Amino acid sequence: MVKELDLPVRILLGPGPSTVHPRVLKAMSMPLLGHLDPEFLDIMNETTVLLQGVFETKNHQTMAMSGTGSAGMEAVFVNLLEPGDKVIICVHGLFGERMVDIAGRIGCSVVKVESAWGEPIDPGKVKTALAANPEAKMLAIVQAETSTGVYQPLEEIAALVDDAGLLFVVDAVTSLGGMEVGVDKYKIDAVYSGTQKNLSVPPGLSPVSFSERALQVLDSRKNKVQSWYLDLSMIRQYWGQERFYHHTAPISMIYALREGLRMIEAEGLKAVTDRHLVLGRSLQAGLTAMGLEMVVKEEKFRLPNLTSVFIPEGINDLEVRSRLLNEYNIEIGGGLGRYKGKAWRIGLMGYSCNRGNVILFLAALEAILSELSFKLEKGAGIKEAAAHAKCTAESN
Amino acid sequence: MVKELDLPVRILLGPGPSTVHPRVLKAMSMPLLGHLDPEFLDIMNETTVLLQGVFETKNHQTMAMSGTGSAGMEAVFVNLLEPGDKVIICVHGLFGERMVDIAGRIGCSVVKVESAWGEPIDPGKVKTALAANPEAKMLAIVQAETSTGVYQPLEEIAALVDDAGLLFVVDAVTSLGGMEVGVDKYKIDAVYSGTQKNLSVPPGLSPVSFSERALQVLDSRKNKVQSWYLDLSMIRQYWGQERFYHHTAPISMIYALREGLRMIEAEGLKAVTDRHLVLGRSLQAGLTAMGLEMVVKEEKFRLPNLTSVFIPEGINDLEVRSRLLNEYNIEIGGGLGRYKGKAWRIGLMGYSCNRGNVILFLAALEAILSELSFKLEKGAGIKEAAAHAKCTAESN
Repeated sequence: MVKELDLPVRILLGPGPSTVHPRVLKAMSMPLLGHLDPEFLDIMNETTVLLQGVFETKNHQTMAMSGTGSAGMEAVFVNLLEPGDKVIICVHGLFGERMVDIAGRIGCSVVKVESAWGEPIDPGKVKTALAANPEAKMLAIVQAETSTGVYQPLEEIAALVDDAGLLFVVDAVTSLGGMEVGVDKYKIDAVYSGTQKNLSVPPGLSPVSFSERALQVLDSRKNKVQSWYLDLSMIRQYWGQERFYHHTAPISMIYALREGLRMIEAEGLKAVTDRHLVLGRSLQAGLTAMGLEMVVKEEKFRLPNLTSVFIPEGINDLEVRSRLLNEYNIEIGGGLGRYKGKAWRIGLMGYSCNRGNVILFLAALEAILSELSFKLEKGAGIKEAAAHAKCTAESN
Repeated sequence: MVKELDLPVRILLGPGPSTVHPRVLKAMSMPLLGHLDPEFLDIMNETTVLLQGVFETKNHQTMAMSGTGSAGMEAVFVNLLEPGDKVIICVHGLFGERMVDIAGRIGCSVVKVESAWGEPIDPGKVKTALAANPEAKMLAIVQAETSTGVYQPLEEIAALVDDAGLLFVVDAVTSLGGMEVGVDKYKIDAVYSGTQKNLSVPPGLSPVSFSERALQVLDSRKNKVQSWYLDLSMIRQYWGQERFYHHTAPISMIYALREGLRMIEAEGLKAVTDRHLVLGRSLQAGLTAMGLEMVVKEEKFRLPNLTSVFIPEGINDLEVRSRLLNEYNIEIGGGLGRYKGKAWRIGLMGYSCNRGNVILFLAALEAILSELSFKLEKGAGIKEAAAHAKCTAESN
């Protein structure tokens, strides 16, 4: 017989999922309503309003797809693209590569704009690609590359895409609720995210938002959307006034999302993003003071909420991560793709992003690295992190 | 500001979702683990074992897809079919039609075997279709048609498909955990279900199981699976020994599924399916005694856990359902497709399937119908249902 759940209580400081707030866990355990219950339809409407807040958009078509962040990525691509369409995809990490893979499965021709891992996309290269491919339909880019820790500024690229008249698609899986996404400001036509990062909600839903222009593209398709499950032309009739049944929505997860978003609304989006920025930079200062090397060299291109740091020479990746997990109940992430075994990824997202976690993690890492004979100045990380947090908070 | 969740406690007697058991709600609210945490990997393994139990299979590739039941349907179709493949689809309701839609989006040619709504598929027609289409790759059928309440016996059809050597695909969304699915017994190659019916778990996951032969078909594909999100060739490396990251699993939902399945394991699958049978027939006897007409004429083709009944002449569908909801907190389902406004669908699934709910529902319906001047013999429904339940239970 399979035993009753008896779980360790982890502090989730990886690239996501982050720790779920108790208020969210409580909301998720509320009794189920039917997916067409008038009370549940109100909850859906409220979720849309709250999502419009974090996406910073007035887009009517703002909702949660019934799958994780990658389902949101696929939903955006299969709804806006058709076989034979040309799409420009910016690739500066694993999630850019995933977009290329998905576009290929649709039968699109893909133009890649690349940068080295650990660096953002150069707007100059985007300009060149746009000029060379006037027939392209869409440009897609990852705002927060979870595989590298790179923050991709959108302002210049957004303006270039707008000038060229392409659909502008942004992956905000790791950015939503942790930094400015600015859907309306950057004239983003389609954006997708996940619940398990800065929203302090379990994985399972993908918040998305579509502009009116994107919906027009959807409405004028020649072919049916290749995925029935992700077909927005039907799903929007369930999230919209019509309330046509499409599939049974993940009701409890929507309770959870609504509660995570309520918490952001209460704290205020600016205060939330400031918290992520201050504590992220504080962690990065602490790690640097301990003698570790950042993957992303320039601070302005470093995500605040996901820090990639090289594993010091002679230190075993799995040994350190296992000890953090087993001795401190702290989970951090390993490297992905070409950083596998070479970097750690430390997340400070949502509820996990608090000052205590910064200090606890640095102290735990110091203790483990010291025992593994990595030379460091005792207490330097914690001291620097604390000083940095104090100073940055004051300057805000 | 959006207010704190304050929900009515519904008794969910529709076609799904059913009421979630408090033990499942509790499991779902346990602290989150990471999707690669060794403790979570154990939970995944246990979930596979428990799912093998309800599917009645030894299939190694038994797991939960990260979407609702319809995602499971799409997953089976996109993984096993390629453009140009011919597929025979049995259509005796809305969910058969959905399979046709999905197969069309893949670029398959579809041969339909149809029956009138409210009737099961005639094995004779299947035999004819198999003979006429020797090049067909797969035959798909819905075991429990949620749109009509028809139970589709699989035995004869399974033997025909086996003789013809096609892949055999079964939709078990409404049957799993409520009646025999018999994956190994009927040599089913791929089967999918949902969590929100007889498993007493919220919607959000799709349990699936694939035979070795199905996996060989997957391995010998000419083209990539058209959906990245549902690509089993990658997902199986996460659920399997490799533990390769694909997407972030809906962790809390898997806790919930595991708990719902533990409850079935504890009660015993035979006892669980007996309970659904006894109480379903009891409800049907009660409704008939009240003077209502079953959609499915022959009892042997009537689902025990989902009863379709015609709305009596002169009675307003929405008025009755609204009163059930507002006065008794009872949700039942309206008709789908050609039964919209003409039938009600009453589910007795999982935790919702208990004797008290049968009596409560019949009493509430009687009270409302009496007030709406539908002529019925007072108390006949309840009396007949109780007698039927007693008698059937004794004969088991």
